[in-house]
Amino acid sequence: MSTNVWNGEHRRIHMQEVGTRDGLQAECAFVDTQDKIALVNALSDSGVAKIEVTAFVSPQAIPALRDAEIVMREIERKPGVVYTALVPNVRGAERAIDARADELNLVMSASESHNLANLRMTQAQSFGALKQVASLARASKLPVDISLSCAFGCPMEGDVSEATVLHWSQRLIEEAGARGITLCDTTGMAYPSQVARLTAMFIEHWPHTELTLHFHNTRGMGLANVLAAIDAGANRFDASLGGIGGCPYAPGASGNVCSEEIVHALECMGYDTGVDLAALIAASKRLPALIGHETPSQIVKAGRRLDLHPLPADFAAIRERALQRDAASAEPRG
Amino acid sequence: MSTNVWNGEHRRIHMQEVGTRDGLQAECAFVDTQDKIALVNALSDSGVAKIEVTAFVSPQAIPALRDAEIVMREIERKPGVVYTALVPNVRGAERAIDARADELNLVMSASESHNLANLRMTQAQSFGALKQVASLARASKLPVDISLSCAFGCPMEGDVSEATVLHWSQRLIEEAGARGITLCDTTGMAYPSQVARLTAMFIEHWPHTELTLHFHNTRGMGLANVLAAIDAGANRFDASLGGIGGCPYAPGASGNVCSEEIVHALECMGYDTGVDLAALIAASKRLPALIGHETPSQIVKAGRRLDLHPLPADFAAIRERALQRDAASAEPRG
Repeated sequence: MSTNVWNGEHRRIHMQEVGTRDGLQAECAFVDTQDKIALVNALSDSGVAKIEVTAFVSPQAIPALRDAEIVMREIERKPGVVYTALVPNVRGAERAIDARADELNLVMSASESHNLANLRMTQAQSFGALKQVASLARASKLPVDISLSCAFGCPMEGDVSEATVLHWSQRLIEEAGARGITLCDTTGMAYPSQVARLTAMFIEHWPHTELTLHFHNTRGMGLANVLAAIDAGANRFDASLGGIGGCPYAPGASGNVCSEEIVHALECMGYDTGVDLAALIAASKRLPALIGHETPSQIVKAGRRLDLHPLPADFAAIRERALQRDAASAEPRG
Repeated sequence: MSTNVWNGEHRRIHMQEVGTRDGLQAECAFVDTQDKIALVNALSDSGVAKIEVTAFVSPQAIPALRDAEIVMREIERKPGVVYTALVPNVRGAERAIDARADELNLVMSASESHNLANLRMTQAQSFGALKQVASLARASKLPVDISLSCAFGCPMEGDVSEATVLHWSQRLIEEAGARGITLCDTTGMAYPSQVARLTAMFIEHWPHTELTLHFHNTRGMGLANVLAAIDAGANRFDASLGGIGGCPYAPGASGNVCSEEIVHALECMGYDTGVDLAALIAASKRLPALIGHETPSQIVKAGRRLDLHPLPADFAAIRERALQRDAASAEPRG
């Protein structure tokens, strides 16, 4: 069978874990600092390519991540894993650099309304601020990834045009000097046709820029979107352990795509994620005790596809009775 | 852009609703007969191609569907919609024929262990019984669909070989005379590579047999499996309103793929499901009151992708403050 998206044929897919940042920041419970460190270490051991460890934001704004410095400093650094952190501004970047982040992740929105509502700045203001942070990172020789929120639609404005996404991507890459761009499906509006088209256009324009796709499973299209992006040439995906991280616009709906669900599916399909799925599932099973509730992970609930179940206890008797019916009907009926 | 699976280009996909049978039989609550009839009528109006209305089984075995005759007789028949019913044996077939089912849906398993555990018969015994039912249906000029459970894996045996699935498909089509075959992913073990391969093989062998794919979303691969099957040539899918219908092997995990999630995704992608999505969602929203709990439907929770949200109440003030910062920084600093 020819190479197609349904058959991974050992193609490498880079899994980037966002649970400890995007996930935990949405939780009510404060997860103990040592537990966070242990969780990041477990994720490192599982073989993910990148971990968004934390965010260097105001402790008042996001108290759940008020221990960003300690976490970033005290995690074990596993060679080959990139430890990144979200930074909203120059102050955050300075803190992240001090704490030895490998990469800074900056953010603005492809939608003016969402940028204002979420970041309290116009897009032009955000872009100006990003350039300052990027130049600080450059001075420290740190690579910058810029996350473009609402790249597949804005919950207030609706569709965001491909031209708009490409316009901002161009400015972020060529003017701000981003090494990587993450196209974020912030509220789960992406659908596969759009993902395939936009991913192909992006890669055609910037083949040497590290492209990440960040999908939410809000409307059940997460894995399909990952596959559409792979088919168009992408190989880096954000995902969240246990699928934690909600969407404020859809209470009760899933947030980030679930790391172990994506890895499970891709490994079934023959892709090489580099991830030890059993280790990832074990890490995910720690979450409920830390956050105080179950996660949406279907793999934690159902197990892997070949985690088998025992035969019913009375199976031998069922089989015996069935076979006796054959014997009975084979006898001459008199 | 060339035709590919990500772009539906108005290709017709037939949606077959199984919520009133596969879904309701798994519920603890008995749904009032008139409510069932109203639900089937709402589904008819939504434009689905086929509805598995009920099952003609022993009322002791499945009390939730003990009103099969009344429901099947009293629903409104919409031209173009096929009203099918599950029948386990000759007695069930006689009842379904009396109640004017358009089609009989029979079932056996591709796995001997699952067949014994679930149906208390060997596969050979089930096949013999199916042939009897099929010949009764033929005498009444009713078409027969046969559902092959565990076609993508057995929760007790593990992988089921493609050769086994093709063997039973052949016997069901060529010896038992099935007009249609449903390959059932009974416990959510299907994955896209397997689905694409098996679907292609099936269609190559039996291009004129009506093939249905019946997926569960147990491990989050439901939509991806639907797309893999479409890419391989399939165009008929079972799905359950609200995603109701559990999997006894994975408590808490999703069961059947959710009708409105599949229709939403396919319509976003430009496929023609013939379904009025708003009507389908409205029907799904009736379910919690009938079954006494929320459904797993992500579309009911999150809305369609372009169901937009209002700007924040203080949006004008946010914007004003942002613009004032520009004005302030434009002034000479003294």
